[in-house]
Amino acid sequence: MEISRKLEPPKKGFSVFEFEERLLRAHSIMHKHKLDALFLTMPANIRYFTGFDTQFFHSPTRPWFLVIPYNKKPIAVIPEIGKTLMEMTWVEDIRTWDSPNPNDDGISLLFSVFKDLKIKFNSVGAELGMEMSLRMPWIDFNKLLEKQKQTFLDATQAIWEIRTVKTKAEINHINFICKAVSSCYYSLPKIINLGETERQVSEKLKKNIIDSGADSIPFMPVVSGQNGVSQIISGPSDKELEKGDLLFIDTGSTYDGYFCDFDRNYAIGNASDEVREVYDLLWLATEAGINAAKPGATTGDVWLAINKIIEDKKLIKNNVGRLGHGLGLQLTEPPSHSFKNETKILENMVLTIEPGLEYLPGKLMVHEENILVTKDGPQLLTTRAPKELPIIN
Amino acid sequence: MEISRKLEPPKKGFSVFEFEERLLRAHSIMHKHKLDALFLTMPANIRYFTGFDTQFFHSPTRPWFLVIPYNKKPIAVIPEIGKTLMEMTWVEDIRTWDSPNPNDDGISLLFSVFKDLKIKFNSVGAELGMEMSLRMPWIDFNKLLEKQKQTFLDATQAIWEIRTVKTKAEINHINFICKAVSSCYYSLPKIINLGETERQVSEKLKKNIIDSGADSIPFMPVVSGQNGVSQIISGPSDKELEKGDLLFIDTGSTYDGYFCDFDRNYAIGNASDEVREVYDLLWLATEAGINAAKPGATTGDVWLAINKIIEDKKLIKNNVGRLGHGLGLQLTEPPSHSFKNETKILENMVLTIEPGLEYLPGKLMVHEENILVTKDGPQLLTTRAPKELPIIN
Repeated sequence: MEISRKLEPPKKGFSVFEFEERLLRAHSIMHKHKLDALFLTMPANIRYFTGFDTQFFHSPTRPWFLVIPYNKKPIAVIPEIGKTLMEMTWVEDIRTWDSPNPNDDGISLLFSVFKDLKIKFNSVGAELGMEMSLRMPWIDFNKLLEKQKQTFLDATQAIWEIRTVKTKAEINHINFICKAVSSCYYSLPKIINLGETERQVSEKLKKNIIDSGADSIPFMPVVSGQNGVSQIISGPSDKELEKGDLLFIDTGSTYDGYFCDFDRNYAIGNASDEVREVYDLLWLATEAGINAAKPGATTGDVWLAINKIIEDKKLIKNNVGRLGHGLGLQLTEPPSHSFKNETKILENMVLTIEPGLEYLPGKLMVHEENILVTKDGPQLLTTRAPKELPIIN
Repeated sequence: MEISRKLEPPKKGFSVFEFEERLLRAHSIMHKHKLDALFLTMPANIRYFTGFDTQFFHSPTRPWFLVIPYNKKPIAVIPEIGKTLMEMTWVEDIRTWDSPNPNDDGISLLFSVFKDLKIKFNSVGAELGMEMSLRMPWIDFNKLLEKQKQTFLDATQAIWEIRTVKTKAEINHINFICKAVSSCYYSLPKIINLGETERQVSEKLKKNIIDSGADSIPFMPVVSGQNGVSQIISGPSDKELEKGDLLFIDTGSTYDGYFCDFDRNYAIGNASDEVREVYDLLWLATEAGINAAKPGATTGDVWLAINKIIEDKKLIKNNVGRLGHGLGLQLTEPPSHSFKNETKILENMVLTIEPGLEYLPGKLMVHEENILVTKDGPQLLTTRAPKELPIIN
């Protein structure tokens, strides 16, 4: 297999034209959902509409708000500490207060923004539903609910309608991080050895991923275990890689805010027939899932296509609740490939295909690839995992 | 100044004895606030009481819950995908569901937990107030509000009463990361050069911090500018370091989940008299803030002590709303050193002392150290910034 070693990263940031496109798309979806405005607090939602990029969201102290009226550009209502950085984005209407302020953490500023909103439907959409959480004190949101003339509605569906279909520029970003990490996964057997710890493996891989152009690696479970792993969500430990281990690595690495999310499996020294068999089966299940992810199909269809391959082997149930999902500015986004899910797969969605199973008690294996849905069908963004389980000596 | 180059990191994880102590402390504070239980959703709160450590919280898809009854060990109500990892903690009562589930994402499981709670005050405390946000869909929390016999009260004060006073083991963790990063900051002038980009500086420093034993670097603004920086919250850019620049670096790096949070300033090539003067003033202001952070004083007293030094120079206002704060499992935690704040400083609080000012229009400088409050007074956790502005050539 040939893999390009150094891919040219796309330009960072997005044009004003791109943000205008996103806004117009939002306005049209808001209209469909009869919303006068979107009220946003989650970092990924704020970044999507503004390009505002700060690690400062790691400080949970201060709330940040973005209001998107149906007839105007976004209005940022943010702590004064963020003003200069927000001024570098395309947002013009920026209102700030000295946060943290226990008496009024931006709420009276929000009142004045809402007061001036043009009203058509008398409703504001907020992040109230599935896969959302309001990043502000519940008590403060209640003050808004009580005092605003507008009705607050759940905008979850509208927000995901906007964000699950990616723009060309977003796809370029995700494609870059997927290709960069694929190349690092591919080279991994050459740089790690039996006897090294999970933590050492993690550090080596992280360095390569950063060198290949990634900005950050917020998510990298590295787990090993004889004949399979017992779980897939912990970081690396000081456990040494031993002959007969399965080594599982997953990563959500980012480029300019955009995630990849896919894993790889390696056998240390050798692999039992059972492990090889499960690997082959999951490779085929992934293939089936990829092929099923066509415009017009449902995420339930993808689930079904994958499940058909693995159901006979699924002695013990798959417990992650789904067999893949969306991704983008978040490690995981809607939709979910789950049983009987009727969410339509649309052109320009970016999805993971993620079959997994527990083949022996406490022994898991999970495969994962990232794809783009094109009008002609699925297109791999990751470089496909090797058809045979790679062995590390 | 002598700095130990390689500090031995404390053992990772905490003993069951430690978690029992935290729980007993919580029980007593819950009793004072008349709460039958705490209902927790935020990663730092869940980790504080369980030790549960996963990067999987980067996936916003699934909610995770922890209920702390007044008479029992914590009950984890979590996605099935986290079961095996949670079983490795001291928590015994673990209830799981196949998440994500659009019809019931853990809510009926929570109902059954609340139904069985022993009732004394008929109230459950939740993360409803300042510096908190519920990490679950608002719609689902409303279902709890509507159906539970218990009243939900704001537990913000109770939670921070528990968490702002650190245990000895927590202090050891924070001390380690502060010392490790201090040493990297100290060595930085030896490894970077005029003409390098902010991004290159950031990568070099990050590698050193990881090599010195840190686990992750979620937060590292690196900003440079002639005679000062215009903001302090963005990541590094491709701007090259030029003669006359002030280079500002801040970091929240972690060890076993615990943060340091402090910055350093460097002059590139040379510094104007004004920049030197501001540096000296902020160094003295930091000193005054450190000395004021004694048990029994208020955070308002710390603010006052710092402000007294800088107020004459504060031509343009300091806009971060405070002059320091708590830290621990979060980059920023209560309390805040702010004007007239009457929060009492207690033994074993860990605090930042963070004076900053805008000395020319659009030109900022901020100093920061981390301290432990002991019964004998403040104790530095960081190695004090050099008294004179370091020059990088």
